[in-house]
Amino acid sequence: MDNSKIISQAIIKRLPRYYRFLGELMEDGIEHISSSDLSKIMGVTASQIRQDLNNFGGFGQQGYGYNVRNLREEIGHILGIDENHNVVIVGAGNFGSALAGFDAFRNYGFQIIALFDTDPAKIGTLIHGIPVYDISELKGFIGANNVEIVALTIPKSAAKQVAVILSETDIKGIWNFAHTELKVPDHIYVQSVHLSESLMRLCFNMNNQDRIIKD
Amino acid sequence: MDNSKIISQAIIKRLPRYYRFLGELMEDGIEHISSSDLSKIMGVTASQIRQDLNNFGGFGQQGYGYNVRNLREEIGHILGIDENHNVVIVGAGNFGSALAGFDAFRNYGFQIIALFDTDPAKIGTLIHGIPVYDISELKGFIGANNVEIVALTIPKSAAKQVAVILSETDIKGIWNFAHTELKVPDHIYVQSVHLSESLMRLCFNMNNQDRIIKD
Repeated sequence: MDNSKIISQAIIKRLPRYYRFLGELMEDGIEHISSSDLSKIMGVTASQIRQDLNNFGGFGQQGYGYNVRNLREEIGHILGIDENHNVVIVGAGNFGSALAGFDAFRNYGFQIIALFDTDPAKIGTLIHGIPVYDISELKGFIGANNVEIVALTIPKSAAKQVAVILSETDIKGIWNFAHTELKVPDHIYVQSVHLSESLMRLCFNMNNQDRIIKD
Repeated sequence: MDNSKIISQAIIKRLPRYYRFLGELMEDGIEHISSSDLSKIMGVTASQIRQDLNNFGGFGQQGYGYNVRNLREEIGHILGIDENHNVVIVGAGNFGSALAGFDAFRNYGFQIIALFDTDPAKIGTLIHGIPVYDISELKGFIGANNVEIVALTIPKSAAKQVAVILSETDIKGIWNFAHTELKVPDHIYVQSVHLSESLMRLCFNMNNQDRIIKD
């Protein structure tokens, strides 16, 4: 894999889509696909797919097309989801609890190994079989359990304080559902999912369909 | 408001961010802000903000800067969240249930008025005070209750079937959490939130910080 090229977020957004579509092709029993058929399914041009993959060294594609399973595995490897990643969830409320039960993550190598909360009624219980600990144990737990990713499912008001704790750990990423920006050191990457902003975009898009450019 | 200009998704993504930041300024008691201070907080250039707003006719901004409350109200109006929108959730599992309790929506004019499911154990119950109905009642309920938005929190396998039902209604938008593309008529806008793809992006980004361009 070529590790020197700079990769834009637009490409990084397409990779998981490719991965998903290739998985659907596998489910349908399709082993090989031409680049033009693949591009039709994905809704991007064949040259776009080729360019995207060339950022990572390119893949055996000739007149023959792509081997579906191999290409999917390569993209999984590029994404880093062919390895296990330990995840903890901070915030055992409605949304954090739902996330703890999200089977999709286990399929992609993400192991949710603990939840953390401040509510004494929740601490010591299991949610979807996963133990809930006191937030005061967060830093120690991360250090002892090789936690790479923290999902933050807490209100905005609590997020800044937790970000301070996380800044003193060696985690690599925060999956941020708190509706605010987080200040953390450069070694921690923050990927935010702002659900209410997504809903606002839907609201605008559905009311202005005659003058938007779809994604 | 100027309704003629074509609006890119990049602009549409920034509008809810502006709305959020302006809300935080209001919470901090700030009534006016210069365009340069606003741009620092938002992390975009002052000229970008001006350009974005000019797509909607521009707003009273001179040497004086912006009136925080007015600008926020204008952006809310552009987004369409100054009006009520009836929402139903299809899928009363972990995630749909969490969504039903998500207070943020009510703050932005979205009223979650019903959930739908196929599970007899759930039908007839209340989740966060909201009734759960049989999926067979979905089409009739939408017609009778001026439902504009359907949040789909069901597995991929069930999504296509529900999309067929929704295609025969007058809803304006689908907020799609099912991990698949939906085929619906043009009058229905689909805004997808693919959580597992977001997690994969986090995985790539955190492992390749030296060669990515951040969003």
